[in-house]
Amino acid sequence: MSIILTAFESSPDEGRGLARDMRVRWALEEVGQAYHVRLVSFAAMKEAAHLALHPFGQIPTYEDGDLVLFETGAIVLHVAQRHPGLLPEDADARARATAWMFAALNTVEPPIVEREQSWYLEGDKPWYAERLPGLNARVRARLDPLSARLADAEWLDGAFSAADLLMVTVLRRLEGSDILEDYPTLRAYIARGEARPAYRRAFADQLAVFTASRPVG
Amino acid sequence: MSIILTAFESSPDEGRGLARDMRVRWALEEVGQAYHVRLVSFAAMKEAAHLALHPFGQIPTYEDGDLVLFETGAIVLHVAQRHPGLLPEDADARARATAWMFAALNTVEPPIVEREQSWYLEGDKPWYAERLPGLNARVRARLDPLSARLADAEWLDGAFSAADLLMVTVLRRLEGSDILEDYPTLRAYIARGEARPAYRRAFADQLAVFTASRPVG
Repeated sequence: MSIILTAFESSPDEGRGLARDMRVRWALEEVGQAYHVRLVSFAAMKEAAHLALHPFGQIPTYEDGDLVLFETGAIVLHVAQRHPGLLPEDADARARATAWMFAALNTVEPPIVEREQSWYLEGDKPWYAERLPGLNARVRARLDPLSARLADAEWLDGAFSAADLLMVTVLRRLEGSDILEDYPTLRAYIARGEARPAYRRAFADQLAVFTASRPVG
Repeated sequence: MSIILTAFESSPDEGRGLARDMRVRWALEEVGQAYHVRLVSFAAMKEAAHLALHPFGQIPTYEDGDLVLFETGAIVLHVAQRHPGLLPEDADARARATAWMFAALNTVEPPIVEREQSWYLEGDKPWYAERLPGLNARVRARLDPLSARLADAEWLDGAFSAADLLMVTVLRRLEGSDILEDYPTLRAYIARGEARPAYRRAFADQLAVFTASRPVG
């Protein structure tokens, strides 16, 4: 029985590792679990066969025998609960790591995604420039306390955990933006995540999908 | 040893049960755990004592002896893992319920909050009316598949679970908006949640904070 993930057949990020399958690939690499990937087109994501796996028609999905999961937070938590290496053993520390997992996805990610969407959905609108400072302020309202809390710690709460894995992937969405220039603590934190061998293997594997499918030019 | 939550001293929703402490109150009522509430002002939420409990300076927080948690998803999951009644016993069903918990907070809630924010942050801006159809479309892009998946089921995946608790509180943010008029399935789902005795006790308790502090007029 083997684990099967779904991922974009043609990722809009062109292999920068921002598609959400990256999180699951990274988690599986951290715990040493092999997996297969089934690529899906944008059209196929909205068809009944895929909707049976993912009610919202997105990627990734996770299949392991009879179990089908969606939502990267839940998949990473499932992997972390079944294999050592991504959550502390102590029950209280484990609950705190889970809090940081939800913080990454429910508190830090939404204003980052909203800022991104404003660019690709409304970048040509007359109000785009006037709205941008407010969008940036909402992102900074998350990065300021996160950076303060992290301070000179290596990871969010003790050893590297599934919470750091999710938080690093969320913060990576800001790479290349001006905002991260003001947060050396967070840039170093992202770099520590990206330097992990499991991250590098996962990144190479998701990039290979893109480079293999790119037309020769 | 008793559980202590924090909640708004003066809730912006005026007791409609939309503040996020409602989720934790409801979960604790479902599993029959008593708790105390410490009210915090907006100013106190940003002071060091509260930031030590909640890095992002928000409510609610959850204290149980030495354990301090933030993020309602994590708190509700913690309560559900420690007490029967909010998660299935079967491991696969439990993982699926967790997927729906993350879906409520990471997939369904963000466009609903973005739509809300556009009203109270930008309701007076010239672009508000022109942006609204796009914001509504992003909410509907979540409600359409959710409503289709729920169909004639009572709850998201078998018996009532922590996932339904979170999803109902997320959807309640749309109460009073035109959008829910098009989703009788979701209106009935919300009503089933609100009819639960544990919900009603939690709602009454959060409302009492507001009515007690309201000036006599």
